[in-house]
Amino acid sequence: MNKANLFYAQSGGVTSVINASACGVIETARKHKDKIGTVYAGRNGIVGALKEELINTNKESARSIAALRSTPAGAFGSCRYKLKSYAEHKQEYERLMDVFYAHNIKYFLYNGGGDSQDTANKLSKLSIDKGFPIKCIGIPKTVDNDLPKTDNCPGFGSVAKYVAVSIREAGLDVASMSESSTKVFVLEVMGRHAGWIAGASGLASEHEGDAPHIILFPEIAFNKKNFLAKVRTSVKKFGYCAIVVSEGAQYRDGRFLAETGGKDAFGHSQLGGVAPFVANMIKESLGYKYHWAVADYLQRSARHVAAATDVEQAYAVGKAAVEFALKGKNAVMPIIIRGKGQRYTWSIGEAKLSDVANIEKKMPRNYISKDGFHITERAKKYFSPLIKGEDYPPYKNGLPRYARLKNILTKKKLEPWKQT
Amino acid sequence: MNKANLFYAQSGGVTSVINASACGVIETARKHKDKIGTVYAGRNGIVGALKEELINTNKESARSIAALRSTPAGAFGSCRYKLKSYAEHKQEYERLMDVFYAHNIKYFLYNGGGDSQDTANKLSKLSIDKGFPIKCIGIPKTVDNDLPKTDNCPGFGSVAKYVAVSIREAGLDVASMSESSTKVFVLEVMGRHAGWIAGASGLASEHEGDAPHIILFPEIAFNKKNFLAKVRTSVKKFGYCAIVVSEGAQYRDGRFLAETGGKDAFGHSQLGGVAPFVANMIKESLGYKYHWAVADYLQRSARHVAAATDVEQAYAVGKAAVEFALKGKNAVMPIIIRGKGQRYTWSIGEAKLSDVANIEKKMPRNYISKDGFHITERAKKYFSPLIKGEDYPPYKNGLPRYARLKNILTKKKLEPWKQT
Repeated sequence: MNKANLFYAQSGGVTSVINASACGVIETARKHKDKIGTVYAGRNGIVGALKEELINTNKESARSIAALRSTPAGAFGSCRYKLKSYAEHKQEYERLMDVFYAHNIKYFLYNGGGDSQDTANKLSKLSIDKGFPIKCIGIPKTVDNDLPKTDNCPGFGSVAKYVAVSIREAGLDVASMSESSTKVFVLEVMGRHAGWIAGASGLASEHEGDAPHIILFPEIAFNKKNFLAKVRTSVKKFGYCAIVVSEGAQYRDGRFLAETGGKDAFGHSQLGGVAPFVANMIKESLGYKYHWAVADYLQRSARHVAAATDVEQAYAVGKAAVEFALKGKNAVMPIIIRGKGQRYTWSIGEAKLSDVANIEKKMPRNYISKDGFHITERAKKYFSPLIKGEDYPPYKNGLPRYARLKNILTKKKLEPWKQT
Repeated sequence: MNKANLFYAQSGGVTSVINASACGVIETARKHKDKIGTVYAGRNGIVGALKEELINTNKESARSIAALRSTPAGAFGSCRYKLKSYAEHKQEYERLMDVFYAHNIKYFLYNGGGDSQDTANKLSKLSIDKGFPIKCIGIPKTVDNDLPKTDNCPGFGSVAKYVAVSIREAGLDVASMSESSTKVFVLEVMGRHAGWIAGASGLASEHEGDAPHIILFPEIAFNKKNFLAKVRTSVKKFGYCAIVVSEGAQYRDGRFLAETGGKDAFGHSQLGGVAPFVANMIKESLGYKYHWAVADYLQRSARHVAAATDVEQAYAVGKAAVEFALKGKNAVMPIIIRGKGQRYTWSIGEAKLSDVANIEKKMPRNYISKDGFHITERAKKYFSPLIKGEDYPPYKNGLPRYARLKNILTKKKLEPWKQT
């Protein structure tokens, strides 16, 4: 096998552990210098490849690369940029091929969700047709936990831990105040189409009366009457009501409870603000004093409270992706397989990119309680190991010390890219 | 000195370390069983005294009390209930005296902000007049950090750490995405009248270009033109702009930004929340894609990321309050005094309740940069030691294990209280 270079890019919304995957990729590649030359990282994801903005990770010290393991967000930049089909956007694919050819890149590792795995899959096919075959390996990443085949997605466990910890803490706060003040607290969490994140908050509820008392899932059509009845019951019984609502909570007809009307680069509706909407609905109907919070980016960047299991798995899929490439595998993605025993164990398996591209995995109905407002024991059994373990970043002067990379671009060899 | 009982109550908005003060009170009292009989805690604060709902803390194990040190919110319940003047609400003060007399309570420790210290001060005077003198000691607590005399308030350091950590993490997230997606992020934090919390977020900014780029303080009249210019400059220069806005941010005429009756991004009338208001203002004027978060109760209950300094000081003021009472002091409050040296040191001093009651300490103008959008080096020097050190709670199954008290009420001796 000739020595070739490797291109790694981060794609879509970042997570608190996507850099741990980058760390796994780079550290593993550095152990195979006989086969892998330089690891280039795309500046701002795949856009970096199109613009020939290739970060030379050889310029980063071993210490900086190691620090990626405990650094949230995308250290090389990410992007929301989806390549269309080859038929529609032939030029973009050709450009990628040109850049990879010019820089002798024969490994393409794409760290993202379903959209990204679709891109990697298409590129793999094209590269074979073009006679410059590139090993295209996906690396799973998404806080939404909605990729098929894998038991869970790196990035999810840490958000899950964040929301469960946060609602437990805020729940205690509201419980303290509810006699004379706030009786209802609403926390909005991410999850556009699937309620995995909202569902994981249910782990905080261990004894009767514990927060959260109500979870609103995208999978369950919102019923105002039932919801308000449940809020009232909770306040009567426990003195307060703590609610976790998924940003994707929706009515039976598919309208989101709070829609902005805007669309993002992938054509998805841009959401936000369902917490104040729900809180206000309660105030108007039941008169309870409320508070609400919207966690937004705080939840997916909260490396300070990441789950150790998640960090380990994020690293492992990065490492496995390099090992897959070195074994000559192509158009596959390492996945996480859960062991069968009572005690949680996991191992790395593989899935074809064609089997994971553009497929969304929703919460199974039997993970959601009959009344649609909480999770079942089955769901708890699934979620619980994913948030386990603490993996604190190093601190200096009271603040987490996160990696600061030099991000030096390699010299361009091609004409500037002209986006059409 | 005859053996007497001690009454402790939590007051107003709770914090992530007010229970550490409770822990300091109870553990210290238990060491002086010759002088202090039972420590009663008010169920839901002072309301518990009025209703004669006295929690017998003797029923809690040493282990449970120790666990309070790492448990957020108010373990005995708190309340928003301010006693008016004796002239206006004579009956309430008389009732407190009756309850304290019936239960042989000669020590009253009130853990709260300025309002609470005012109540404690009034009760102290009354008890002397009534011939049943009660030692009334205040214990400082407020996330707002607005009590006078003390260098800082227990509860503040941990919120400060939370907001600085959060904006650092979210800032990295936005930086990753800004090339093709979100360019502006707005985090709303507490602080209705004083910008201490918002200001502390400035600690996250260590190098040029670090988040937060803009801080909006209640102390600085909001100027839309200057603000938008600053946002634009930040986006042009660093690619993105991370903003921390105090809930108390206001116009020159004192109107809150959040109270201006605007419409939010999705056309609903504003439901509260200065973050979406500011984010939308930017979108309309500059067109940048935004995200926003409202931390609300998450920030003040976030024991998982508490500052060790804050936990120690919260415990110390609880301990000192008992020691003050045993020394025969009255109508005083332990305060935190900062050492003069370069290295941060602190000790416990005392202030008269009459000097701290109902006085709000605002951020000094020289803590805020000239342009009004950030903090100065002087402010950083003040804030920095307060967020230092990590004091993680114990975890079980991936979640913090917080104290669960029995909260057993002692037998009532009086007729039910009739609120007038």
